[in-house]
Amino acid sequence: MKEKIHHIGIAVKDLKKSLQQWKKSFSIKSGEMEVIRERGVKIATLHFDTGPVIELIEAIGGDSPIQKFLEKKGEGVHHFCLKTEDLDQKVKELKKKGMRFVQENPVAGAGGSRIIFIHPDNLNGVLIELKEEKT
Amino acid sequence: MKEKIHHIGIAVKDLKKSLQQWKKSFSIKSGEMEVIRERGVKIATLHFDTGPVIELIEAIGGDSPIQKFLEKKGEGVHHFCLKTEDLDQKVKELKKKGMRFVQENPVAGAGGSRIIFIHPDNLNGVLIELKEEKT
Repeated sequence: MKEKIHHIGIAVKDLKKSLQQWKKSFSIKSGEMEVIRERGVKIATLHFDTGPVIELIEAIGGDSPIQKFLEKKGEGVHHFCLKTEDLDQKVKELKKKGMRFVQENPVAGAGGSRIIFIHPDNLNGVLIELKEEKT
Repeated sequence: MKEKIHHIGIAVKDLKKSLQQWKKSFSIKSGEMEVIRERGVKIATLHFDTGPVIELIEAIGGDSPIQKFLEKKGEGVHHFCLKTEDLDQKVKELKKKGMRFVQENPVAGAGGSRIIFIHPDNLNGVLIELKEEKT
């Protein structure tokens, strides 16, 4: 099963201010903002002309994993996301290889997608989101 | 001037072991390993079928900025890289907007390219490499 990089997720303290700064710096267009209550985040996407997107992520509510990340590590790259065509199959395959996941099963992601996070212990401390996207 | 994401750079302690783990997990092919003495790094690239590449970076020598990063933060995403067609022009444009860079002028990057790093203070703590690539 083929994967490719879909986006880079960056934890930020002030979404509006950060958006302005990125847009001022590069040829990049912002998409719609989206609140995902289940994950305690508000996100904004930034699109280059081609290729993967930058996702700026602000915490909503003190319980948000992003709030905890910001308190512990400060602003910065939080995760990156790989697209896969069949999420359940990929998760099954990786579990067979001994990989651990943050969630037991896929959860709701941006734009109504299904996602799951691979635990950073598996791959050099990197938190990787797997996102299902049929092609 | 248009930019797009070229690669994600990940600081790792053991390049060989990390390469195996990534290749075991995804449909990804490794390119040539490369030593960049000026920057104190040994890197290996991992290519998905399409889109940006993952760059695994191991420190060589105690003075390497990657060694310092590993000691301070541990393994994880170190930077990501944006391609630009005219590096000097882009740097000039960003300096005019008040951005700070890690180096005064572009330095040697992987594959004989010219690169420069934008200081993480400018964009949410993210270290961004700008790489010249004519299209």
